[in-house]
Amino acid sequence: MSERIVVVGFGPVAARLIDELLPAVRKGLARLTVIGEEPEAAYNRVLVADLGVGRTTEEALALADAAALIADGVDVRLGVRVRRVDRARQRLILTDGTSPGYDRLVFATGSRPVIPNLTGLNPDPAAPVLPPGVTALRDLRDAAVLRSAVAGGKRVVVLGGGVLGLETALAAAEEGATVTVVHNGPHPLGRNIDRGGGAVLATSLRNCGVRMAGNARSTGLEHNAPDGGFSALLLDDGSAIDGDLLVLSCGVRPRTELAEGCGLSTGTGILVDHKLRAHHEPHIFAIGDCAEVRCPDPECAECRTARGPSGLVGPGWRQAEWLAEYLMLLAAESKADAGPSSDAAADAAAGADALPPLAPEQPGVIVLKARGMNMAVAGDNGAEPWDEEALATGAVNGRARLRVAQWADPEHGRYVKMITRAGVLEGLVAVGMPRTAAELVQLFERGAELPADRSLLLRLDGPDQVAAAGAADPARTVCRCAGVSGTAIASAAADGCGTVSEVSGATRAGTGCGGCHEDIRGIIEAHFQGAVA
Amino acid sequence: MSERIVVVGFGPVAARLIDELLPAVRKGLARLTVIGEEPEAAYNRVLVADLGVGRTTEEALALADAAALIADGVDVRLGVRVRRVDRARQRLILTDGTSPGYDRLVFATGSRPVIPNLTGLNPDPAAPVLPPGVTALRDLRDAAVLRSAVAGGKRVVVLGGGVLGLETALAAAEEGATVTVVHNGPHPLGRNIDRGGGAVLATSLRNCGVRMAGNARSTGLEHNAPDGGFSALLLDDGSAIDGDLLVLSCGVRPRTELAEGCGLSTGTGILVDHKLRAHHEPHIFAIGDCAEVRCPDPECAECRTARGPSGLVGPGWRQAEWLAEYLMLLAAESKADAGPSSDAAADAAAGADALPPLAPEQPGVIVLKARGMNMAVAGDNGAEPWDEEALATGAVNGRARLRVAQWADPEHGRYVKMITRAGVLEGLVAVGMPRTAAELVQLFERGAELPADRSLLLRLDGPDQVAAAGAADPARTVCRCAGVSGTAIASAAADGCGTVSEVSGATRAGTGCGGCHEDIRGIIEAHFQGAVA
Repeated sequence: MSERIVVVGFGPVAARLIDELLPAVRKGLARLTVIGEEPEAAYNRVLVADLGVGRTTEEALALADAAALIADGVDVRLGVRVRRVDRARQRLILTDGTSPGYDRLVFATGSRPVIPNLTGLNPDPAAPVLPPGVTALRDLRDAAVLRSAVAGGKRVVVLGGGVLGLETALAAAEEGATVTVVHNGPHPLGRNIDRGGGAVLATSLRNCGVRMAGNARSTGLEHNAPDGGFSALLLDDGSAIDGDLLVLSCGVRPRTELAEGCGLSTGTGILVDHKLRAHHEPHIFAIGDCAEVRCPDPECAECRTARGPSGLVGPGWRQAEWLAEYLMLLAAESKADAGPSSDAAADAAAGADALPPLAPEQPGVIVLKARGMNMAVAGDNGAEPWDEEALATGAVNGRARLRVAQWADPEHGRYVKMITRAGVLEGLVAVGMPRTAAELVQLFERGAELPADRSLLLRLDGPDQVAAAGAADPARTVCRCAGVSGTAIASAAADGCGTVSEVSGATRAGTGCGGCHEDIRGIIEAHFQGAVA
Repeated sequence: MSERIVVVGFGPVAARLIDELLPAVRKGLARLTVIGEEPEAAYNRVLVADLGVGRTTEEALALADAAALIADGVDVRLGVRVRRVDRARQRLILTDGTSPGYDRLVFATGSRPVIPNLTGLNPDPAAPVLPPGVTALRDLRDAAVLRSAVAGGKRVVVLGGGVLGLETALAAAEEGATVTVVHNGPHPLGRNIDRGGGAVLATSLRNCGVRMAGNARSTGLEHNAPDGGFSALLLDDGSAIDGDLLVLSCGVRPRTELAEGCGLSTGTGILVDHKLRAHHEPHIFAIGDCAEVRCPDPECAECRTARGPSGLVGPGWRQAEWLAEYLMLLAAESKADAGPSSDAAADAAAGADALPPLAPEQPGVIVLKARGMNMAVAGDNGAEPWDEEALATGAVNGRARLRVAQWADPEHGRYVKMITRAGVLEGLVAVGMPRTAAELVQLFERGAELPADRSLLLRLDGPDQVAAAGAADPARTVCRCAGVSGTAIASAAADGCGTVSEVSGATRAGTGCGGCHEDIRGIIEAHFQGAVA
């Protein structure tokens, strides 16, 4: 009997898991069901804002082909929801009245936008019905709402100064919309960026044509539009920010209610151990935005410092990849159990047990790029050069103190902070210095030691360094979402890939946030120039 | 009748005035008397600390040759003090019983060390008798006390974190003494340096072997040495800093009591107008440390922002030079008045009146150099990159705001701050970056605009810039005390000067603080290399 695997949710992470499980499906080792509540198969959610400003198309966002999957034997169910999970009988009750059974169940339910508690917004987080003129930016419907506002020359108010809100605002402003970002801290990006970097970032955003309303506490919405829709965001100081469309960008929350409903443990997300298994439930797994890796062992050092779900697609993809391998080993094991040869069974069991658990994710790097605007932040970057208390953080048992080197030139929109321990970056901020930012991100990800003269790093953005810009390490990670190196992309180019989408098809590079598209283009060009010369 | 000019005081500034007046004395236009209370003629007071650590000799410090002056007809009176000034009769009453008359009287009485109010120190500021084991650093006697302590391997405690105290501490530490600097602020140099620069400076001083006791409030002295002399400095937290010699370096105070005694107006110093004349007294002048330029006009914009005496030798020398010219014109005028030709009299009078007053001094540059240590500060440098209030200082009537660019790498002892208005420096700090410091000081003094990419300035201390270090502007001011340009020094070298002291003799460059000696040596070498090539 082949193993029945059911995946709940059909977003980018689920799509990746299904992709990786296809060989097992084809070999008849596993039967695979995927249940998506949207009418579409998986698409690239990270680029919904780009779609909303008309920079990309629905076709380009697609990450899965339902027809091809069905042809491969996958049971694809779209536009249907899971009502509840019957763990005792190992089956699901769906809204279409069917109740498929499972041997392994994978939650990939993702997350939903946080709807802030404001007068005039539906405060039920489980089933928000937003008033006209208000949207989040999560799915294709949201993109269409933004698209029509930007195309119609409407004024857009973005509530939230996180990376998604800023990307949306920058893109919409570049496409000619009047955009105001409203956020409640002294600067955008909250705790992801330090005070100095945040100040320079805010000025850079203004210079890109985005109006910034900081330190703003919103209290409610005014609905005075002719259609009774949104007309202004009201602030607690009595002022109001007029607009035609309010885009909610206040973060996301893991969708855990189905898991909770069947008695699984949840924290911020569905709690899973280092093998992505739900606590005390060997048949259920969770990956992506809905999963929180925190094992039941209270002594586990790794889990003590673990953060909640990252909200980034890259870590979800790595979980999907790892889980696919694990599920295939488990399927081989149960097939062997059922079959005649006990040797094969023992081998398979050893295989699943022996699979090393997924390595913990590095702290994420946040990159923001637009015309005339570049920012990268990573790690803990709040420590200031003379903040003795912050610099002593973690300096125990002979471990070195944190050190900070900092370049601030707010007049010219430039700011760099390097936080190191024993010469290796633990945090960074770079605003307005794209080459320095790229180099620091590389050094951060490689854990490489910085040159003792830290000011050397500033030179990369000096007037004489443009020519030297191609000298990047070819082995560096170019696509951080899919984890693809420059070498792999160059080799795809050598194999004949002549466009970014061809490289994406061959390597998956560029299928995530899209921030690396220009780098991929550069590598393709370098390859062809080399071939011509 | 030739004009009787009397100079009270025979320090570096008086020596310069006398030098400049010699032509008039030789021509019989003026009779000149100089009264010095020390047994020696003028010597370089700035280098008393260097003498104290054995780095220079009394001979090298000499700035005047009494015998030569006497041979030129100057009435030189050493080891004698002025008891009082009889302004009604225009004469002085001296301690030797004589009472020379004057037509013009010049106060060049300088300043005396501030004696802090501590238990166990004589609190009479007019006639301090310091207990054994305690000294200031003002004259040759003080230098001898320090010399014997350093040579004897004694522990030196320097009270005061000003530039003189730090120079003394660095020099004594370099000569092998155990030195502690005690100061009451969070960092040395007080308000002359900003917080960040002060912190890096303090660390650099420690790395040079100087112990730094900051935030220390001293309350008294302990006298437990075998000879009953100083043994420890007591602090208000109950602790004590042990030592064999206490060097008081708590600033100086203008010597004004003689001027006050004859009814002249004084503020911090003797108040003089823009022609260095005492208020409402056309026969009396003051120059150097004892003089405070602040004219009687309450509407004078220049005087409203004027600071007290600078305590630096350079501004005093420029006053001496200007005053000599003015006094010579006045002498010519009175001789012409007495003579037959009224045309000549009118010419001379027009000359003295027409002489443009001395230009106000630029804010001073403070430089600190030692093995492994370099610092330059200038102007107002307290504003921080995001301190909106500080950055708005002076930005009125359409004047640009202040802007700050800052490089901080305290781990490597490097720190630079550039405070600009419309691209021109109004303040600077550079620690641990000697070439950047030199370039910034030049740009500051020239009022030149900085490159838009401020980080270019950091490169001067990069590993690849050593070879390019000779590319300094040849016309730059090399000796800031005497105001001598690189061009003038190069021309002295071309005229045959082959040593620093020959160049000093020909141009006066290097006769002040001595900080430029290495630069002068470099220019001489460059000249001879050029001549050989």
